[in-house]
Amino acid sequence: MLRLALVVLLAFLPLLGVRAAEEKIFFGYLPSSSQVERDWETKFRAIPDPNLQREYMQRMSARPHHVGSPYDRNNAEWILSKFKQWGLDARIETFQVLFPTPKERVVEMLAPTEYRAKLEEPAVAQDPTSGQKNEQLPTYNAYATDGDVTASLVFVNYGLPKDYERLERLGVSVKGAIVIAKYGMSWRGVKPKVAYEHGAIGCLIYSDPQDDGYYEEPVFPQGPMRPPQGVQRGSVMDFMRYPGDPLTPGVGATADAKRLDREDAQTITKIPVLPISYSDAQPLLAALTGPMAPPEWRGALAIPYHVGPGMTKVHLKLTSNWDLKPVYDVIANIPGSIEPDIWILRGNHHDAWVNGAEDPGSGQIALLEEARAFGAMLKQGWKPKRTIIYCAWDGEEPMLLGSTEWAEDHGRELQQHAAIYINSDSNARGYLQAGGSHSLEAFVNEVAKDIQDPEKQISVWKRRQAEAIELGTPEERKDARQRADLRIEPLGSGTDFTPFLDHLGIASLDLAYAGEDKEGIYHSIYDDFYWFTHFSDTDFVYGRALAQTIGSMVMRFADADVLPYQFTGFAETMSVYDHELKELLKHQQDQANETNRNLDDGIYSAVSDPRHPTYAPLRAEVPPFLNFAPLDNAIVTLTRSAERYQKASSVLGNRSPANASFSALNQLLLQSERRLTWDEGLSRRPWYKNLIYAPGWYTGYSAKTMPGIREAIEEKRYSDADPEIAKVAKVLHAEAELIQQAAGELEKAK
Amino acid sequence: MLRLALVVLLAFLPLLGVRAAEEKIFFGYLPSSSQVERDWETKFRAIPDPNLQREYMQRMSARPHHVGSPYDRNNAEWILSKFKQWGLDARIETFQVLFPTPKERVVEMLAPTEYRAKLEEPAVAQDPTSGQKNEQLPTYNAYATDGDVTASLVFVNYGLPKDYERLERLGVSVKGAIVIAKYGMSWRGVKPKVAYEHGAIGCLIYSDPQDDGYYEEPVFPQGPMRPPQGVQRGSVMDFMRYPGDPLTPGVGATADAKRLDREDAQTITKIPVLPISYSDAQPLLAALTGPMAPPEWRGALAIPYHVGPGMTKVHLKLTSNWDLKPVYDVIANIPGSIEPDIWILRGNHHDAWVNGAEDPGSGQIALLEEARAFGAMLKQGWKPKRTIIYCAWDGEEPMLLGSTEWAEDHGRELQQHAAIYINSDSNARGYLQAGGSHSLEAFVNEVAKDIQDPEKQISVWKRRQAEAIELGTPEERKDARQRADLRIEPLGSGTDFTPFLDHLGIASLDLAYAGEDKEGIYHSIYDDFYWFTHFSDTDFVYGRALAQTIGSMVMRFADADVLPYQFTGFAETMSVYDHELKELLKHQQDQANETNRNLDDGIYSAVSDPRHPTYAPLRAEVPPFLNFAPLDNAIVTLTRSAERYQKASSVLGNRSPANASFSALNQLLLQSERRLTWDEGLSRRPWYKNLIYAPGWYTGYSAKTMPGIREAIEEKRYSDADPEIAKVAKVLHAEAELIQQAAGELEKAK
Repeated sequence: MLRLALVVLLAFLPLLGVRAAEEKIFFGYLPSSSQVERDWETKFRAIPDPNLQREYMQRMSARPHHVGSPYDRNNAEWILSKFKQWGLDARIETFQVLFPTPKERVVEMLAPTEYRAKLEEPAVAQDPTSGQKNEQLPTYNAYATDGDVTASLVFVNYGLPKDYERLERLGVSVKGAIVIAKYGMSWRGVKPKVAYEHGAIGCLIYSDPQDDGYYEEPVFPQGPMRPPQGVQRGSVMDFMRYPGDPLTPGVGATADAKRLDREDAQTITKIPVLPISYSDAQPLLAALTGPMAPPEWRGALAIPYHVGPGMTKVHLKLTSNWDLKPVYDVIANIPGSIEPDIWILRGNHHDAWVNGAEDPGSGQIALLEEARAFGAMLKQGWKPKRTIIYCAWDGEEPMLLGSTEWAEDHGRELQQHAAIYINSDSNARGYLQAGGSHSLEAFVNEVAKDIQDPEKQISVWKRRQAEAIELGTPEERKDARQRADLRIEPLGSGTDFTPFLDHLGIASLDLAYAGEDKEGIYHSIYDDFYWFTHFSDTDFVYGRALAQTIGSMVMRFADADVLPYQFTGFAETMSVYDHELKELLKHQQDQANETNRNLDDGIYSAVSDPRHPTYAPLRAEVPPFLNFAPLDNAIVTLTRSAERYQKASSVLGNRSPANASFSALNQLLLQSERRLTWDEGLSRRPWYKNLIYAPGWYTGYSAKTMPGIREAIEEKRYSDADPEIAKVAKVLHAEAELIQQAAGELEKAK
Repeated sequence: MLRLALVVLLAFLPLLGVRAAEEKIFFGYLPSSSQVERDWETKFRAIPDPNLQREYMQRMSARPHHVGSPYDRNNAEWILSKFKQWGLDARIETFQVLFPTPKERVVEMLAPTEYRAKLEEPAVAQDPTSGQKNEQLPTYNAYATDGDVTASLVFVNYGLPKDYERLERLGVSVKGAIVIAKYGMSWRGVKPKVAYEHGAIGCLIYSDPQDDGYYEEPVFPQGPMRPPQGVQRGSVMDFMRYPGDPLTPGVGATADAKRLDREDAQTITKIPVLPISYSDAQPLLAALTGPMAPPEWRGALAIPYHVGPGMTKVHLKLTSNWDLKPVYDVIANIPGSIEPDIWILRGNHHDAWVNGAEDPGSGQIALLEEARAFGAMLKQGWKPKRTIIYCAWDGEEPMLLGSTEWAEDHGRELQQHAAIYINSDSNARGYLQAGGSHSLEAFVNEVAKDIQDPEKQISVWKRRQAEAIELGTPEERKDARQRADLRIEPLGSGTDFTPFLDHLGIASLDLAYAGEDKEGIYHSIYDDFYWFTHFSDTDFVYGRALAQTIGSMVMRFADADVLPYQFTGFAETMSVYDHELKELLKHQQDQANETNRNLDDGIYSAVSDPRHPTYAPLRAEVPPFLNFAPLDNAIVTLTRSAERYQKASSVLGNRSPANASFSALNQLLLQSERRLTWDEGLSRRPWYKNLIYAPGWYTGYSAKTMPGIREAIEEKRYSDADPEIAKVAKVLHAEAELIQQAAGELEKAK
C-alpha cells in the first residue's frame, strides 16, 4: 500500500509542479499584482494569430523594399495604418541618410584565363517574386568606396587577422593584391578593413558552398540553401567606429543636421569591395596556384584550394550613386498609466535588401501581432503602468540607420526614460535565442518558462535547456543542469539594439527562435515568401511564439511594481569575463614563450618542407602580467551588493499593496545600465559608451565583453590594458553603488 | 678577456658536443667493440646509392607484378640474382596460396536513375606504364566472397561501428541494403565485416576526394592525388582472425599442407565487396535522399551528402577465380661469426597490386642497398657476430601471404633463434616513422641520432623531435621535449611484421620516412615510376636514408655484446596503456550515465526536430568497476626490474673484453618478447599470441594495445575484462622475471 501511495503521489507531482509554478509570484511584483499580470498575459498569449502573420509577411515581402525604394515607404505607411487601426498613437519619423547604390560593377579575371563574373541572381520559375528585376538592388556591399583596380588575387580564408598571420607563415603577401575572402566567421565589413590594413587594394567576398550552399542541404528551389549564383548583399560600413548615417555621427540625421563631407566619413571602406556567388568565385579560385590553403581554410568547391597568387590578374571596378535617401521609422506609443515617464521600447526593422521575407519579415510579423494584441487588450481594460513604445525601423540593413538616427535624435530623453529596449529581427523554427544585458538574464528566464514550445509539450525554457545539455559543450551542459538561469549571450551588434545598448546604455534584449532549419538565402533575392513558406517556419507557429515571448516581456516589464532587473547573475557573469581575460592573457604569454622557445631551438626551420616552405614567425613580445586587482575588487563589491538586493527583493511578497510606492526606486533602477557607460566612450571609438558590451573591432557582429581590456590584450597593446581595467572597475563600482542604494530603498519600504 | 674566453668556449661547445656524442658508447657494447662498430657503421652508411635505388625501382616497377603474375616471379628471380651477385647465400622459398582474381564485376544503379559504374582506371598519356592494361589486375577487393545482390543503398561514412550507432539515431537501418563507405579511418576489410554484422548484403568502398583526391592537392598527372577514376584495390580478408593463406591457418602453405575447404575459411568476407572511384561514386551518392549525413561524414564531392536510402536501387555482382597461386619469398643469409644461432631478420615485400613503385618499391630499394652494402663490407672483413637474414616477401598485398606462410613454416626455429625482425614497406620524404616493440624504443632512438636527414643539417632524430614539438598535440610536445626517448608507435598490422610480432612473439620494428608529400595513388595503376619520380622522393635521398637507418640497426643489433633491448621505456609505456584503459572505462561509465540521465530527463525527445527526427539511444548498461590491481602490481614489479637491469647495464663500459661472454644472457634476452605471448592466444583469435600488441578487431591496421582488455571494454563485454587483466598481468610478471634474471646475469659478470 505504501508503495502504491508513493506511485500515486509521484504520478501527481508533475501536475503539482505546474500548479506551483503558476502560482509563483513574478519577480518585482506584489502578490496581488502578480496574479493580475498573469491573467492579462494569459489573455495576451491567446491573441497572436499565425494566419495573420502569414498575411503580413506576404504583403510586406511582395516587392523589394530597400531604403529609398517606393515599396519601403509603402510598407512604412502600411505599418502606420495598422498601428492606427489597432488604436495606437502612431507616427512616422523621417531622417535623411547617405545610402550608396551601385552604378557600375565589374569583376573579371584577365589571367591566366579570362572570366567575367556574372554578378546576377537568376529568377526561379516557381518563385513568383524572384523575377522582379526592375526593383531589385544589384548584388553589392553598401558603403564600399568607389575604385578601379587590377591586381593579382590571394585567397585569405575568412579574412580574419589570424588568417593573415598564417599567410605570412606561408610566405604569401597581399600587398598590392586583391583578396578573395569567404563570407562567415567575421562580419563582412571586417574583411575589407583587415585586408586594407595588410596592404590589399581590393576585396571580393564570396559564399562558399560549405558555409551556406550544397554542403549543408540541397540548394534553392529544391532545398533551402544558396544556389550557385546566389549572392549575399550587405553593408561593409565600419560600424565598429559608429553605426548609422556616416555623415552624422552622434546626432540625428534630420533634414538640417550638420553633415560631414563624404571624404571625412570614417566608416566608408578604404578599398572597393564586391560580393560574388560561388559560381563566380569558382573560376577565380581554381586559377590560383601557390601553397595549398591550410585544411581548415578549404571549402566545398570541387577544386584544390590554393592560396595564390600564381599568375592571376583580376580587375575589380565599383562606382556608386552617393545620394541621401529618406528612412521612415514608424513609432507607436501606448502611454503608461502610473509611471508614464518610464519607457519600455520594442523594435524590429521593416526594410530589406530585396524582398526580405525572413529578414526582416519573420521578426516584424511578431511585432505587429504584439501591437494588435495590445490594441485589443487596451480596449478590454488593460492599463500598462509604464509607457510602451513600438518601433518599426527603416534602414537597418545598410547599418542601423533608422534606429541609430532616432536614438541619437532622442538620446537625452531616452537616457532619462528608457528602462529596456527589446529587439527582434529574423525568426525561424527551433530554440529560444536570447542575448542581452545580464541584469535582464533572470527576467528572460522567468518569462521563457511561461511560453509553450509550438512543437513540444514543454516550455521554450525547458527546450532550450535540453538543447544546451544535448548539443552544448561540457561546460554549457553543466551550466544548463546546475545554474538557476540559462545563460543569455552578450550582445555585439548587427541589429537595432546597438544604439540603445552601446551608445545610450539602455538595458537591451535581442530575441529569436532558430536552430532547426538551415538557410542559404540571406540577403539574396531568394529570401522571399515562397522560400519562407517552403523551408522555414511554414505554419508560422514560431512567429506566434516570438510574439508571445516578447509581448509577455514587454507587459511584464511595463507592469511590474519594481522594475525586474536582477544583479546576482550579472555579477557572476562579470566574474566569468574577468576569468576569461586572465586566461586570455595567460594563453598569449604561453604562446609567446612557446614561439620564442621554438625559434631558439630551430624547430620552425626543421619542419619546413623545402618543396613547400613555411616561414618562422617573428620573435614574440612576451605579454607582461597585468593588474587585475581593481577588477577583482570591483566584482567582489558588485557581488555583495547584488546579493543584498536579491535578499531585499525576496520580501516584496510580504508587502501590502497599500504602502507600495516604488517610484523613486524605479527611477534609480532605470539608470542601472547607464552606470556601465563611460562619457568618453571606448578608446578609438567614442560613440561606444558601454564598457561591458561592444561589437568587436575585428569581429563586427560578435560581441567583445569588457572590450577595452579584451581588445587591448588581443591586439597586444598591453600597456593600454591596465588603464582599461581601472575604467571597468570604476563603472562596476558605480553599478554596485546604485544596487546598494536600491537595496536600501527596498529595505526601507519594508 | 674573460668575456671573450667565454664566447670562444661557447663557440666550440657544439663541436665538443658532437665529439662527445661520437664517443658515446653504444648501449649493449663494451667500449672497445663500440668503437669498432662505429667505424663499420660509418663505412656502411657511405655505401647506399640513390642512383642505384632509382634503377632498382624502375626495373621492379616496369610491369605489373601481383601474386601469380609473370613479372612477380621475374622480380623474385632478379632479387635472388642480385643477392647472389653481392655474395650472399640466397634462395627462393615457395608456398601455394589461395588468391582470388575477379571474373565478373558489376556495380549499377537501377533507380531512381540508371548508372553503370565504369570500374576502370584510364591510362595517362605521359605515364608510360599506366597503359599496360593486359597485365593489370582489375579494380577489386581480394577475398570478397562471390555474390549477386540488388538492394537499396545507404551511405555509412567510414563504416565504423560508431557510424552505425549514429545511423540508428537517424532512424536509418542497413538491413538488407548495400552500404557505400568511404575509404579511410578503419582498414578497408573492417567495413564489409561491420556492414555484415548490421545486416547489409553488399558493400561498396570509394575514395572520397576529401581523403586523397583534389581536396588535398591537384590530381594525377597534374599533381600527386587520386584522379576521378582512380581506385584503391586491396585485400578485405578478415586478417584480424589470422593473416596469410585462408586455407592453412597456423601452418605453412607448403605444397602438401593440409588445407581447409574454402567454405570453412573464416577470413573470406560474408558479403560481396567492390571498391569504386569517386567518379563512379558521385552519381550513387547524389541519388540518395533521407537525412543529411552528419557534417563530419561529408566529403568533398560537390553534392549534399545524404544518408539514404531514398528510392535507390543498386545491383552489385562479383565472381572470382578461386585458384591457388605460388608466392616466391627470396631469403638471403649472412651467417654470424660468434653467436650464429641468434638471428637478426630484415624484410620488405616485393609484390604489388599493379606496378607498385611506391608500394613496395620505395621500401624494397632500401633493403636491396643494405644487402649490397653488407656484401661489400663482408669482402672488406666485416664479421657480424650474429646471423643476418634478409627477406624479400611475396604476397604481402593480398594479406601477408609470403611472410606469414614462411613464419608459420619456420615457426619453431624462429622462436628459438630470432632476436628481432625489422620491416619496411613504402617510403617517402619527411620524418622518421618508427613503430615497434617498446623494448626496442631506446635502441631506435640511439640509432636515429646517428642518421643525417637528407634535407636538413640535423639528425633524423632531431627532425622528428621538431615535428612532434611543432605539429604534435600538447602532450606529444611535452614528451618530445622532456622524455629521454621519442616514443615509438605500437604496431597493429598491415605489413609483414605481423606474423613475427603477433604470432611468434619476436620483437619487431617497422620503419619509414614520410610526412612531407601527399599521395592519392595507393593501390592504383598510377603508383608507378612516373608518379614516384615526379611527386615523391624524386632524388631518392630518403631511399638512401632508409637504407642507412635500417642497415645501421641491423648491424648494431647483430654486433652488440649484449642484445640492446631496454626495458624502462617499455615499463613506462605499459603504465601509459594501463592509464588509458582506466580512462576508457571511466569515459564509458560517464557516457552511459549521461545517456541514461538524458533519457530520464526527456532530453532526446526535446531536441528531436519533427521535420528531421532523431531517435533516442537505448538505455545504457553502466560499466562496472574493474579490478586493475593485478595489472598495477605487475607494472610496479616490471618497472623495478627494468630499473635494476638499466643500472646493471650501465657498468658494461667498465668491463674488460677478456671476461666478456654474454652468450647465456643473450639467449635469455632473446626470449623477452616471447614472454608477452600466451599459448592460447587472444580470446576469439588464437593465432594472435602477443597479449600487448594486436591489430584491432574493428580497426584492422591500427593497433590495440593490451587488446584483450581494451577490446573487452570497448565492445562492452565487461565480464570478459577482469580475466584479461589477469592474463596481461601474468605475462608482465613473466617479463619482469626474465628481466630480473638478466640483470642478475649482468651483475654476476661484473
